[in-house]
Amino acid sequence: MTIAEIEELCGDSLPWVAMLGFTIEDIGKGTCRVRLPQRDEFLRPGGTVSGPALMSLADYGMYVAVLSAIGRVELAVTTNLTCNFLRRPKPGAVVADCRLIKLGKRLAYGEVSLFSEGDEAQGPVAHVTATYSIPPA
Amino acid sequence: MTIAEIEELCGDSLPWVAMLGFTIEDIGKGTCRVRLPQRDEFLRPGGTVSGPALMSLADYGMYVAVLSAIGRVELAVTTNLTCNFLRRPKPGAVVADCRLIKLGKRLAYGEVSLFSEGDEAQGPVAHVTATYSIPPA
Amino acid sequence: MTIAEIEELCGDSLPWVAMLGFTIEDIGKGTCRVRLPQRDEFLRPGGTVSGPALMSLADYGMYVAVLSAIGRVELAVTTNLTCNFLRRPKPGAVVADCRLIKLGKRLAYGEVSLFSEGDEAQGPVAHVTATYSIPPA
Amino acid sequence: MTIAEIEELCGDSLPWVAMLGFTIEDIGKGTCRVRLPQRDEFLRPGGTVSGPALMSLADYGMYVAVLSAIGRVELAVTTNLTCNFLRRPKPGAVVADCRLIKLGKRLAYGEVSLFSEGDEAQGPVAHVTATYSIPPA
Repeated sequence: MTIAEIEELCGDSLPWVAMLGFTIEDIGKGTCRVRLPQRDEFLRPGGTVSGPALMSLADYGMYVAVLSAIGRVELAVTTNLTCNFLRRPKPGAVVADCRLIKLGKRLAYGEVSLFSEGDEAQGPVAHVTATYSIPPA
Repeated sequence: MTIAEIEELCGDSLPWVAMLGFTIEDIGKGTCRVRLPQRDEFLRPGGTVSGPALMSLADYGMYVAVLSAIGRVELAVTTNLTCNFLRRPKPGAVVADCRLIKLGKRLAYGEVSLFSEGDEAQGPVAHVTATYSIPPA
Repeated sequence: MTIAEIEELCGDSLPWVAMLGFTIEDIGKGTCRVRLPQRDEFLRPGGTVSGPALMSLADYGMYVAVLSAIGRVELAVTTNLTCNFLRRPKPGAVVADCRLIKLGKRLAYGEVSLFSEGDEAQGPVAHVTATYSIPPA
Repeated sequence: MTIAEIEELCGDSLPWVAMLGFTIEDIGKGTCRVRLPQRDEFLRPGGTVSGPALMSLADYGMYVAVLSAIGRVELAVTTNLTCNFLRRPKPGAVVADCRLIKLGKRLAYGEVSLFSEGDEAQGPVAHVTATYSIPPA
């Protein structure tokens, strides 16, 4: 699937994604970069992006990576998501680089590294691993 | 802190919480029940509540549980959150029972069991563990 | 299955369990208490029990809890284990209380609280969640 | 620290490592490859390497990676270890590639990819993330 096709699918079926303003910056075979825009709603005390906004972005990125690898599977669902928060993000946009580590028939497993946009050299602000369950065709 | 005091603090400082409509149903010493209302924005294909909405609720519940135990610490931040999704939630409200397992000077660790409201007997839809870092006073 | 039946099964098929000297202290329907004895091999600098010995005990306890609930399934395998280390164990025996949170046809999920034996009132030294995959009958 | 220095330190202070026969195959600045030899004690039903042996290897690899980056810190301890088991290992030796993702003053966080030796092209048998707490100097 192309970026446009995935964004159309998610725009129709995932109001959460539309509400948060996620976009897809880049896509490969089992990889992608997705982006959380800067918004006041995502900030928390200390002028930093809230943890749930980061986890939501990572979960979306994993879904896009699965779609990039196996095509349209609307009912794929997360079974486990583990997030380690590593440093305070700056109060701006966040990008997430996603990569599938294993793609089986029933499960996909991957990792996501999240960065404050423009500040990638400082290292990731969070690192996520996640497992998606893929329904039988 | 009382429910009213915590909700006022979060209403002022956490626009994310206000946007999602979280409420506190009950509070103890290191425990609480928080609630995610029914909203179309939280649904995903298959008529179920999206994973990120569940994780956001659990993260909020842990923060409330920390505040209930040690009082006002606006800058406490999550360092790890692990979510296991156990069954499909019904397309309605979700409640989350939170409990601190360890409360140290610098770290709080606890667990959260999430249920479709009114459907608690079916068992949890998700189970979360999380670690919060508490800043020095 | 009874304690004696499970210990005989594991004694025959799991040399790892025999090598480490695990025992089953108590068993219920989807619950159990297992025990790691005191041994110099399990200690590490600072006079504390090594993390891998604790994780091994928790993984064993989850397997016993699964067997207690569904009977003999030799090929059940762990798919995820998450361990949070909460305080330094004393250099002695460790007990682990295990509880299944969900038991489905294909997956079992549960939690394990580990304590220094005789020191349970201090709170757990570690807390584990784990998922087991159950093979089709 | 060199491989010989780290192996001498661990041989003196970590009887667990000696008991399991771990070795260091390669070391960099914040990276390493460690190895679990083939032994009957590590096998479980189905002719595969037991999960706890894999987690023990990953925990050791993270410790070696920390030592490689900051030198002798005997009292560094794991605070969280999350293991996802991805495919059945072959009943032989296992190698683990470790990499620090963040190295702060008080915390190190990294990931470990484990492979059946000689079978790396099949993809990892397990993937681990772990956090180490570094004591003040």
